[in-house]
Amino acid sequence: MVCDEKKRRSKCPVTFALDQLGDKWSLLIVRDLMFHGKRTYGEFLESDEGIATNVLADRLKRLEAEGIIEKTRDPENRRRVLYSLTDKGFDLTPLLMEMVLWSAKYDADTATPKAMLDRMENDRAAFIQEVREGMKI
Amino acid sequence: MVCDEKKRRSKCPVTFALDQLGDKWSLLIVRDLMFHGKRTYGEFLESDEGIATNVLADRLKRLEAEGIIEKTRDPENRRRVLYSLTDKGFDLTPLLMEMVLWSAKYDADTATPKAMLDRMENDRAAFIQEVREGMKI
Repeated sequence: MVCDEKKRRSKCPVTFALDQLGDKWSLLIVRDLMFHGKRTYGEFLESDEGIATNVLADRLKRLEAEGIIEKTRDPENRRRVLYSLTDKGFDLTPLLMEMVLWSAKYDADTATPKAMLDRMENDRAAFIQEVREGMKI
Repeated sequence: MVCDEKKRRSKCPVTFALDQLGDKWSLLIVRDLMFHGKRTYGEFLESDEGIATNVLADRLKRLEAEGIIEKTRDPENRRRVLYSLTDKGFDLTPLLMEMVLWSAKYDADTATPKAMLDRMENDRAAFIQEVREGMKI
């Protein structure tokens, strides 16, 4: 049992994660921040999945409220808002890596290069560290 | 880059996983099969999150169509349908483990016992194997 039976209603960790992460769109924003170096509202809007502006605005607010992302002003252009992952957000890296590895196994046309999959599988800690460093301003 | 830029529209592995896994309810069914030993429609319905019957029926169909779960007849009661995870479904174990570990870190009231969290973190392969064996009929 992963959850204690009595506590499960509110305390199941799978439910907690799913409630915090929300729907598909929230995790795609996390992906864009984590792997694609995106930082701005406009960049998220351009992603191929075609997120709607109202959905994007709502999910950014939710992710910020949950402490997964944070907003700062661009020091070079004070009118521009930059989003970044918090520690809590970066700690989702292993979860997204497992998603990528699972998809690579079951989607013959997956876009992830074989060399990257090998590193995710065999050099986890170093990969996670690189993701984190790549995201620094 | 986890996804090759040109291929990303349809081939991004994060999108693939999110599309296949669907919403929260699908993953709660996978959790019930994986960690709680549930096998029947009635057992899924009893889970604390209170899934609605129409949602449950729909998500079971979707998960079966995607090859994540499969149906068999209960050999002891031919009118009863038993659900189980396929190999593809069991291969979601690391993803759910990362969800549990993340939640344990950020939800002070998480229901997962500390000893189990330690095993998930430090003895991954054995834990995955046990999950798999626990699910055998």
